[in-house]
Amino acid sequence: MPIVTIQITREGTTPEQKAALIKGATDLMSEVLNKPPALTFVVIQEVELADWGVAGLPVEEFRRQTGSEPNGD
Amino acid sequence: MPIVTIQITREGTTPEQKAALIKGATDLMSEVLNKPPALTFVVIQEVELADWGVAGLPVEEFRRQTGSEPNGD
Amino acid sequence: MPIVTIQITREGTTPEQKAALIKGATDLMSEVLNKPPALTFVVIQEVELADWGVAGLPVEEFRRQTGSEPNGD
Amino acid sequence: MPIVTIQITREGTTPEQKAALIKGATDLMSEVLNKPPALTFVVIQEVELADWGVAGLPVEEFRRQTGSEPNGD
Amino acid sequence: MPIVTIQITREGTTPEQKAALIKGATDLMSEVLNKPPALTFVVIQEVELADWGVAGLPVEEFRRQTGSEPNGD
Amino acid sequence: MPIVTIQITREGTTPEQKAALIKGATDLMSEVLNKPPALTFVVIQEVELADWGVAGLPVEEFRRQTGSEPNGD
Repeated sequence: MPIVTIQITREGTTPEQKAALIKGATDLMSEVLNKPPALTFVVIQEVELADWGVAGLPVEEFRRQTGSEPNGD
Repeated sequence: MPIVTIQITREGTTPEQKAALIKGATDLMSEVLNKPPALTFVVIQEVELADWGVAGLPVEEFRRQTGSEPNGD
Repeated sequence: MPIVTIQITREGTTPEQKAALIKGATDLMSEVLNKPPALTFVVIQEVELADWGVAGLPVEEFRRQTGSEPNGD
Repeated sequence: MPIVTIQITREGTTPEQKAALIKGATDLMSEVLNKPPALTFVVIQEVELADWGVAGLPVEEFRRQTGSEPNGD
Repeated sequence: MPIVTIQITREGTTPEQKAALIKGATDLMSEVLNKPPALTFVVIQEVELADWGVAGLPVEEFRRQTGSEPNGD
Repeated sequence: MPIVTIQITREGTTPEQKAALIKGATDLMSEVLNKPPALTFVVIQEVELADWGVAGLPVEEFRRQTGSEPNGD
C-alpha cells in the first residue's frame, strides 16, 4: 500500500500526462516491490512557479538569470 | 504539538465538515496521547480528482471502470 | 481514499496508542465524509525531540525554558 | 540537496515575501550546513484558512474566539 | 525540478530495489514531462508496520484479519 | 502558525546545527511574515543516503560518479 507523491511546478501538465504519471508510478511499485496497484495511491501536487525556489530564487527568476528553459529544470 | 495532515479528493467538502475533521483530529490527539489542543495543528489538503491515482488510474477513471460511487473510495 | 498523516514527537507512544490513533482517524473520515475504511491510509511519523522545534527552540530546550511537561505540548 | 517546505495560511503573501522566504531558507541551509544553493529546493504551500485548524477550531473561528490578529498566529 | 516521495512500509527493501525505485521515478519524470534528471529529487520514506494503518487497523493486524500476504498490500 | 519542514540527508548533523536550523527558520518566518515564534513549528527529517536520489541515482552513487563532496550537494 505505497503512497507516491509527485511535486511539480504548475506549467500546463495535461490530464493525459497526469494519467501517465499515475500509471508509471503504480507500475514502478508493482515491478520493483510487487505492490498491488489496487492499494497504491499516487498524489500529484502542482506548485505555482512563485512558490518553488531553487538556488535561492523563485523558479522564474532562476530561469531568467540562468537562461534555462521551462522544461530545462 | 502534533501535526495532523488530512489529504482528501476535492469533492465539495463543506466548511462544516472541515471544522468537524479539525475538531475530531484534535480530540483524537488529546484523548489518545493527552496532547494539548492549543498546540495541535490540523492541515487539510484537498487534491483534484485528476491529481489522485489508485490502481494505476486517475480516480474518475478508476470509478468509471469499477462503477464505485464518489464516496465509495 | 483519504490519507491521514500524524506527526508526533517520539516519546514512547505504545503500539496500542498507535492502533487507537489509526482507528480514530479512520473512524473520523468515515463518520464525517463517509470514506470507506478499506481505502483510508493512516501514516504515523514519530519525530525525534531534537528534530522538532517550537518558539525557535528544540522541544526539550523549549520545555526547559518554559517548564512545560512532556505532554504539555 | 535539502528540501525546505514552508506551509502557511493563505493570507495575501506577496511574491516579494515569497522570494524573501526562498532566499532566507536557502541561505540558512548554506550557512548552517554548507549546502549548495543550486541543489536546495524550497516549496511554499499556502493553505486556505478553512483548511487549517488549531485548538480544535478552523483558524478564523480560533481568531474570533481568542481575538488574536491575523498575524498574531 | 520535481520531487517524488515514495512512502512504503519497512519490510526489507534492499539497496538495489531502492536504486531501481530512484531510477524508475526519475525516468518517469523525464519521459512524461521531460524533466531533467539532474534536478529531480526522489525521497524514499520507509514506515514501520506499526505506524501504517489501513481499514482502521495497523498493517500487521489488517493482514492477520484478512489473511493477505506482506506484499499483498 | 507556519510549519517549516527541512529534509536533509542523514550525514552527522549535530544537535547544535539542528538548533540553528530551528532558530533560523523561525526567525525567517517572523522577519518576513511577522509570524509569532510560539506558534511556528519546525520539523527536521533526516533521510538515509540510500533513500535519497538525484539524477536517477542514490546520492552516494551520484557522488561517486560525479566526484562531488558530501556537502557539495
